[in-house]
Amino acid sequence: MVYFRSDYSLGAHPEVMEALIKTNEEHSDGYGLDIHSENAGRLVKELIGREDVSVHMMVGGTPCNVTFIAAALRPYEGVVAPRSAHIYSHETGAVEATGHRIINFEGVDGKLTPEMIDKAFDEYEDEHTVVPKMVSISQPTEIGTIYSKNELYAIRDKCKERDMYLYIDGARMGAALTCDEADFTLKDLGAIADGFYIGGTKNGALIGEALVITNPEIDDHFRWMIKRSLGMLAKGKIIGVQLEALLEGGENNLLSRIARHENKMAKRLREGLEEMGVSFYSKSPTNQIFPVFPKTVVEELEKDFFFYRWAPEKDGIIPVRFVTSWGTSEEDVDSLLARVKEVLI
Amino acid sequence: MVYFRSDYSLGAHPEVMEALIKTNEEHSDGYGLDIHSENAGRLVKELIGREDVSVHMMVGGTPCNVTFIAAALRPYEGVVAPRSAHIYSHETGAVEATGHRIINFEGVDGKLTPEMIDKAFDEYEDEHTVVPKMVSISQPTEIGTIYSKNELYAIRDKCKERDMYLYIDGARMGAALTCDEADFTLKDLGAIADGFYIGGTKNGALIGEALVITNPEIDDHFRWMIKRSLGMLAKGKIIGVQLEALLEGGENNLLSRIARHENKMAKRLREGLEEMGVSFYSKSPTNQIFPVFPKTVVEELEKDFFFYRWAPEKDGIIPVRFVTSWGTSEEDVDSLLARVKEVLI
Amino acid sequence: MVYFRSDYSLGAHPEVMEALIKTNEEHSDGYGLDIHSENAGRLVKELIGREDVSVHMMVGGTPCNVTFIAAALRPYEGVVAPRSAHIYSHETGAVEATGHRIINFEGVDGKLTPEMIDKAFDEYEDEHTVVPKMVSISQPTEIGTIYSKNELYAIRDKCKERDMYLYIDGARMGAALTCDEADFTLKDLGAIADGFYIGGTKNGALIGEALVITNPEIDDHFRWMIKRSLGMLAKGKIIGVQLEALLEGGENNLLSRIARHENKMAKRLREGLEEMGVSFYSKSPTNQIFPVFPKTVVEELEKDFFFYRWAPEKDGIIPVRFVTSWGTSEEDVDSLLARVKEVLI
Amino acid sequence: MVYFRSDYSLGAHPEVMEALIKTNEEHSDGYGLDIHSENAGRLVKELIGREDVSVHMMVGGTPCNVTFIAAALRPYEGVVAPRSAHIYSHETGAVEATGHRIINFEGVDGKLTPEMIDKAFDEYEDEHTVVPKMVSISQPTEIGTIYSKNELYAIRDKCKERDMYLYIDGARMGAALTCDEADFTLKDLGAIADGFYIGGTKNGALIGEALVITNPEIDDHFRWMIKRSLGMLAKGKIIGVQLEALLEGGENNLLSRIARHENKMAKRLREGLEEMGVSFYSKSPTNQIFPVFPKTVVEELEKDFFFYRWAPEKDGIIPVRFVTSWGTSEEDVDSLLARVKEVLI
Repeated sequence: MVYFRSDYSLGAHPEVMEALIKTNEEHSDGYGLDIHSENAGRLVKELIGREDVSVHMMVGGTPCNVTFIAAALRPYEGVVAPRSAHIYSHETGAVEATGHRIINFEGVDGKLTPEMIDKAFDEYEDEHTVVPKMVSISQPTEIGTIYSKNELYAIRDKCKERDMYLYIDGARMGAALTCDEADFTLKDLGAIADGFYIGGTKNGALIGEALVITNPEIDDHFRWMIKRSLGMLAKGKIIGVQLEALLEGGENNLLSRIARHENKMAKRLREGLEEMGVSFYSKSPTNQIFPVFPKTVVEELEKDFFFYRWAPEKDGIIPVRFVTSWGTSEEDVDSLLARVKEVLI
Repeated sequence: MVYFRSDYSLGAHPEVMEALIKTNEEHSDGYGLDIHSENAGRLVKELIGREDVSVHMMVGGTPCNVTFIAAALRPYEGVVAPRSAHIYSHETGAVEATGHRIINFEGVDGKLTPEMIDKAFDEYEDEHTVVPKMVSISQPTEIGTIYSKNELYAIRDKCKERDMYLYIDGARMGAALTCDEADFTLKDLGAIADGFYIGGTKNGALIGEALVITNPEIDDHFRWMIKRSLGMLAKGKIIGVQLEALLEGGENNLLSRIARHENKMAKRLREGLEEMGVSFYSKSPTNQIFPVFPKTVVEELEKDFFFYRWAPEKDGIIPVRFVTSWGTSEEDVDSLLARVKEVLI
Repeated sequence: MVYFRSDYSLGAHPEVMEALIKTNEEHSDGYGLDIHSENAGRLVKELIGREDVSVHMMVGGTPCNVTFIAAALRPYEGVVAPRSAHIYSHETGAVEATGHRIINFEGVDGKLTPEMIDKAFDEYEDEHTVVPKMVSISQPTEIGTIYSKNELYAIRDKCKERDMYLYIDGARMGAALTCDEADFTLKDLGAIADGFYIGGTKNGALIGEALVITNPEIDDHFRWMIKRSLGMLAKGKIIGVQLEALLEGGENNLLSRIARHENKMAKRLREGLEEMGVSFYSKSPTNQIFPVFPKTVVEELEKDFFFYRWAPEKDGIIPVRFVTSWGTSEEDVDSLLARVKEVLI
Repeated sequence: MVYFRSDYSLGAHPEVMEALIKTNEEHSDGYGLDIHSENAGRLVKELIGREDVSVHMMVGGTPCNVTFIAAALRPYEGVVAPRSAHIYSHETGAVEATGHRIINFEGVDGKLTPEMIDKAFDEYEDEHTVVPKMVSISQPTEIGTIYSKNELYAIRDKCKERDMYLYIDGARMGAALTCDEADFTLKDLGAIADGFYIGGTKNGALIGEALVITNPEIDDHFRWMIKRSLGMLAKGKIIGVQLEALLEGGENNLLSRIARHENKMAKRLREGLEEMGVSFYSKSPTNQIFPVFPKTVVEELEKDFFFYRWAPEKDGIIPVRFVTSWGTSEEDVDSLLARVKEVLI
């Protein structure tokens, strides 16, 4: 069985694992109060070009999203997001568990637009309605698309106009930053967002994401919020060690190298499918692609390849998701392409 | 200023007030454990033709909705409702405050359809997604329309198929039951819903709604839920007294008499406006109507009449809401019609 | 059956009822945005001698307590209170339902001391512990005792030292203010507390309490919090009308006259019992007294009088609670005293 | 600096790290749905001698405690625990964040007694009070003591009598099972508890605990609860791999070998201190010991050794905590003893 199921079906990238082994017998204080976590935070600050921010080593993406939202919002406030957003579609109501509504709209290519934010305010009235106070977008989106620099700044401007926070879910931030379409940098995110994270888990780490908070009010007592949200690890050092391994080395750090490989493998796959005339559910330039196949083709492919059916069958057609990871090889891609070719005919 | 603002701008209907005065100096135990609350519960059971249900005297509609939902759902479950539903649009996130998502869809004439319930399950996958476990509809809807008996039973059937609870918000149930289009009875609701309430506040009471629970599992420890949801009154008797006054007398009880009057006044207003060629935001047969006027007309009417702008202006046009109540007179209606006639020309 | 069960077993005091009748057919805007609610707020401000505060008409005491706490605290903060406090002992976990801990200590005469606040900080460490951020006391306490002016200011000083909010539950504030031991005024409370309420329900109203917030940060969007906490009434006017009736007239307003009567009746009862050598569970100068009787005496009294057993029987002895209300007459008291005399011998 | 700070200051035990390395490049499905997690679950079932239980791989102890409580309790129910319990003293209100109260009592030697459970019911009345529905104890306790088999069964019996669930926090279960005083087995826990966990993090793993649920009602949709509580890892396999490494091999598995080593080092330290006449805050037979020193001694030791001050100084005296781990050597212990000897004189 060849895996195109996800970018988390393997363990850590060998260089990340090496760092874990090397630091395993160092003593340190617990709960992320160690030299590696501190160093990883310093590396993030360098990458975004700001010293006046806070960086927290987090155990996963959902903890980043939910803890940030819970720390930022007062009880009667909600967060505006596309209906396809991970916080809405794949976190089992963890945001609502903290008492906050996700005011959702059907995205365009999986993306939120400034118009949707205005629409949220059309629905808003007074003390009888939830206050739209935060915008949450994902870069890349749940369906692999990315916001252009202009789109990001347009959303930022609308947030300013509406007095809202801007948060960016970066579970696959590496893939977004290094894809062909990318015209934004981490410095842009540091400049426009109140908070965002750089994902490690889907980019070569076992666990771990670096959450950046640029708004000091939201950062106030944030470690209390992490603990209360069940997100603090006794051996927190292991997150710092992994992020350190991913982020040191500047522009060409391991995070970028892995992401570029993922994107390259996805591109090879996408272009191969396009050549065969396969159509796609979304135009993704990153490491997740969503071809659409007849049901019979899907069933045939499932015999040798492991991947997601992205949506239920409709009129005999099923969109599927292929994801590439640090371990995906050209052979893996080519074997999939060859199999598709066979069954499509 | 003539009020078409709401059906809660006046105090109690004189017969309700009379009951409060008459019982004011009776001693009773607190928190709804009194003879009047018990008697009101008995009257409700007679009206719905079932003895095997539980009836709770509640202080308001939002407490009914939220307490029922919180009692029925496990933490990871959500409630399916139209986006216009009161629980979504006018309760400031009180449902989310209990940790539950409102899975919402744009309604058709303000109503939920069985297809929307299926759509909620298209979005559902597994442990990563909120479980759609309850359907919440309003009779009449937030925009005054009502579900026909067939529509109610179709939703009930879909709930059975999907293993979901059915809840009905009846803030203006009297108006629904007594309007020209009504082809359902309280007995139908008692037969199909796991819970619903008969609203008093908007039907002549100062406060008070009768919440019916037909599902004993949801009713388990329900008084603990009321207290925890801040909905238990020390002098709970006053709710029982008012509901008793509204509900005794069978088919022709005060609740129905008031509702019929409200509907009659609304009809007079609607037909008068229709004659002038006014169009409507919704086809409401109940005591709320939603004519659409040019902005200039709305501003002119606002000088002498108090009412809601239902939505923000768009292209110079504003939908407004006129509501009739137990105190609305034919003179009130005719004075509004006369004024519209003047300013429309 | 003669009622010493509670101060909420009767309806409204006749003067309060008169006000409800007189204003019943006035139209007004809903949700507490009416002239009577505004006027009641103005009266409260006069009584506490501050214009720069906010006054909210609330439906009950538990809604006051819980909504204030939920508005004031960030998620990881808790409230320090005696274990006998109403929020801990009789609100079914409504505070915890908003996510906050009640850090509780056994009170001394039902009262919190500054030492207990220090003790809460002994338990406090860092991000692993709940931050003690509010002190909540009741005046009078759950067992009828009152804090002296010195005690109140000592707690205020400790709150300042510890950077904590001070909140005062005043369900029976009238009784506290007018009892023989009282050496504090509403002006003192307005000067020292971030929030407190003056209870109406147990002082002659059907429902209604006036919640005062002196801290503008806590007051921010407070009406959103009320709505979300299920505490906003459509016909909110009826609370304003009742508080207005209770509070107009300055020092000798109806609230004080009722409270003085309640205290006088309780004193007559207490002194009568003391003469018979009865001992008490608490030294209450207000309208709740807690004599201790042998079980056999309690059972005998229960035949003609309705009251609470305050705690389970222990060694044949039961503390009970007698409460006087606006409707308690000297005859009621004397009949109880006579009966006790009979059965004690 | 020699670490007696905690049993989580080092990384993984070498054998655990070896397992992670060996399995790192195996593909698997995510979120704990992998062969290693399944196998670890099977090993747990063998150890407790029951097939009819469910075992979940959890990321940490707080997630075990809070997710279990949130899954088991209805909104108005609370959990009874000693005030020193981790859920009360070191989880920043994470239990209250799910809406549940911890009804706490001062423990005896850090332990809960059946009498305290009765006391919780003395405080319980009716719909105005939180229902005590679960007992939570820790084995070993927060101060290192352990419940004897008799004590465990006495609590179990009281839970049965009171219709309560029993939950056991086993963050250091290995240390409890293998200490000199232990007269209970995992089979006992499987027989008496509705849920408990076997801790990995403090017993040689990087992260990971095995949560056992014997009550199928609580287990219903438990994976939805884990996700909603932010506790589901994309690369969940790494927990399974570690628990597998710790638990395979039966009685003499790695978990036990590490725990025995920890206990042996702690005993060497304890006996060394006892010989010098040092007294202790608690009589712990496990790998945490709590000697009491004059402040000057503590300050002196802190120059070369890293450990916790367990409580604030009082009268010049400070209780401290020394913890031994898989990496603690006899030399570490002896160097600490030597230093104490020097400074005590």
